[in-house]
Amino acid sequence: MLYPREQLHSFAAQVFQQCGLTEADARLAADVLDAADIRGIDSHGISRLWAYVRLFDERLVNPRPKVSIIRETASTAAVDGDNGLGLIVGPKANNIAMQKAAEAGMGWVTVRGSSHYGIAGYYPLQALRHELIGWSMTNASTRVTPLWGAERQLGTNPIAVAFPAGEEQPIVIDMATSVVALGKLEIAQRKGELVPDGWIVDRDGQPSNRPEEMSAGGCLLPLGSDRESGGHKGYCLASLVDLLSGVLSGANWGPFVPSFLIAERNLPPVGKGTGHCFASMRIDAFMDLEEYKQRVDQWIRTMRSTKPAPGTNGPIIPGDPERQTEAERSKSGIPLHQSVVDGLREVARQKEVAFD
Amino acid sequence: MLYPREQLHSFAAQVFQQCGLTEADARLAADVLDAADIRGIDSHGISRLWAYVRLFDERLVNPRPKVSIIRETASTAAVDGDNGLGLIVGPKANNIAMQKAAEAGMGWVTVRGSSHYGIAGYYPLQALRHELIGWSMTNASTRVTPLWGAERQLGTNPIAVAFPAGEEQPIVIDMATSVVALGKLEIAQRKGELVPDGWIVDRDGQPSNRPEEMSAGGCLLPLGSDRESGGHKGYCLASLVDLLSGVLSGANWGPFVPSFLIAERNLPPVGKGTGHCFASMRIDAFMDLEEYKQRVDQWIRTMRSTKPAPGTNGPIIPGDPERQTEAERSKSGIPLHQSVVDGLREVARQKEVAFD
Repeated sequence: MLYPREQLHSFAAQVFQQCGLTEADARLAADVLDAADIRGIDSHGISRLWAYVRLFDERLVNPRPKVSIIRETASTAAVDGDNGLGLIVGPKANNIAMQKAAEAGMGWVTVRGSSHYGIAGYYPLQALRHELIGWSMTNASTRVTPLWGAERQLGTNPIAVAFPAGEEQPIVIDMATSVVALGKLEIAQRKGELVPDGWIVDRDGQPSNRPEEMSAGGCLLPLGSDRESGGHKGYCLASLVDLLSGVLSGANWGPFVPSFLIAERNLPPVGKGTGHCFASMRIDAFMDLEEYKQRVDQWIRTMRSTKPAPGTNGPIIPGDPERQTEAERSKSGIPLHQSVVDGLREVARQKEVAFD
Repeated sequence: MLYPREQLHSFAAQVFQQCGLTEADARLAADVLDAADIRGIDSHGISRLWAYVRLFDERLVNPRPKVSIIRETASTAAVDGDNGLGLIVGPKANNIAMQKAAEAGMGWVTVRGSSHYGIAGYYPLQALRHELIGWSMTNASTRVTPLWGAERQLGTNPIAVAFPAGEEQPIVIDMATSVVALGKLEIAQRKGELVPDGWIVDRDGQPSNRPEEMSAGGCLLPLGSDRESGGHKGYCLASLVDLLSGVLSGANWGPFVPSFLIAERNLPPVGKGTGHCFASMRIDAFMDLEEYKQRVDQWIRTMRSTKPAPGTNGPIIPGDPERQTEAERSKSGIPLHQSVVDGLREVARQKEVAFD
């Protein structure tokens, strides 16, 4: 079923208002979900609305947080999200990073006391509007084992970075530091398919191709999977994100990050909420903007012109697939599975908001 | 053969002085090589001295560069290395990042007009001495194809980041963004062994296990290797490093980065020399240093206590292997292959410096 993005946005915003958010905050949270849906990252869009609603129903998240700077320098800030929804704490902290960049060339902001912040890519897309290079990272519920481990200790801890371009479309990197996103396991399990070597280990740390091992206490592997193929590097990247977003911010880290799905076990906290990290860099702090634009355009054209590997159309540019989906869905609307629609209707009923 | 590190350091410094460097710069360049040798990264230590010497002999590098800031803000600087040796331009630019961090919370420095800067990990190790979080990245001679390509367009573009700890040893990440370092291919070729799936493609972009395909125009694959295992993510990371170190700095980027080995073909330049990028972050810009130290110590202990995968001793901490090698080599000395010793004796003869 296809739904116009405006309808889903308006519905999500009304639901968030019913959860106690201000009208402006509710619209902001809906913006972040919309960015996922329109770009084809279905696992992080309106399909998760019910899970955010549960956080409010269980009083696990503060609907009216006072997001504040608890420490700052010319180019940095440590932000406390006051246990607010990540979908509004994240954008506010990201704005602080952009302001710092305007004032000091670069801004780097850590966040504690937040919760699930949606797609990592939303934040650098905001920076692009101001012709800034934007970064975002977050830690996340524990799903990933370090290399040589048989126990979940890290999240899929994504890194997103975007670079403005000139005549070309911008470069938008948005990647989990695990070998795959959890959603791919869920899809394989639904279809009854096996998954490739190197994606997961079972609860005893043995390699497995059975996606259902994840729900039985197995672990995702870090990018690179095993030692021979660079699994230590994926572990390093997941650690980097956790140390910057979690340890340095004062949030929970590693296995202590609160689960987004409240049914899951949470360990006693070692900090406040979930942790993020945002950065913005002013291009003219390093070179003339026009010169940069010419250079990055040439970089993009050079990569696009790479000789293709057999059986492929050749390399693409980070952000291309999401851009193509956005172009399609802007016309056609957002496709939703029947199970998602059913869930939204249930949320609509509970929150007394019309869905369709 | 085992050589005391002091002997190798002194020899390298004398050779660099004979190449025209000041005494202080010559010692600095020798420091960077020593950091590789003592930590076991043999491909980036004194075994490469001959290649640096060639750069001077061919007048490709300026022995007395005036390293200057061409643009700056409170927290950022764009540095021009004046076509100097990366082993001295790098440390000077890294110092600027550390100064900026002291003044503005964080420092981010791009560098153009440099050359091969040694191991990426040297630079964050310097930041650790000042209890800063340190970053370094560099682009490098083209060796890696983007995912779905059959042509070298990117270097092994490493990322190194180090985090100070309290009672525990610091966390030191230092990783190429390719699936493996080039040195592993060279070793396999010397031994006449095949390499694992997913490391390289031949000059036509076909997967290969024959290491000699690299010298025949093949390509290293990015971390993740293929689409199914996350090769797009390794390509994203190599691009990230190239865009920050090369495009934004005004240096060459992608296939235009000058080769360290002067016998190799160079494309007409699109910028100045090789590009790097350094960052430093003051911990007390985000939280009290003592609180951070307790938190990071607990993170380290948590990761070390992960349940081990079958057949392993369990996860280690980034920097452990290099630290262990350093402890061993500090006592025993640096092991050098006969071919390396022969090369050093030849350099000694040419530059009229005693080796042994």
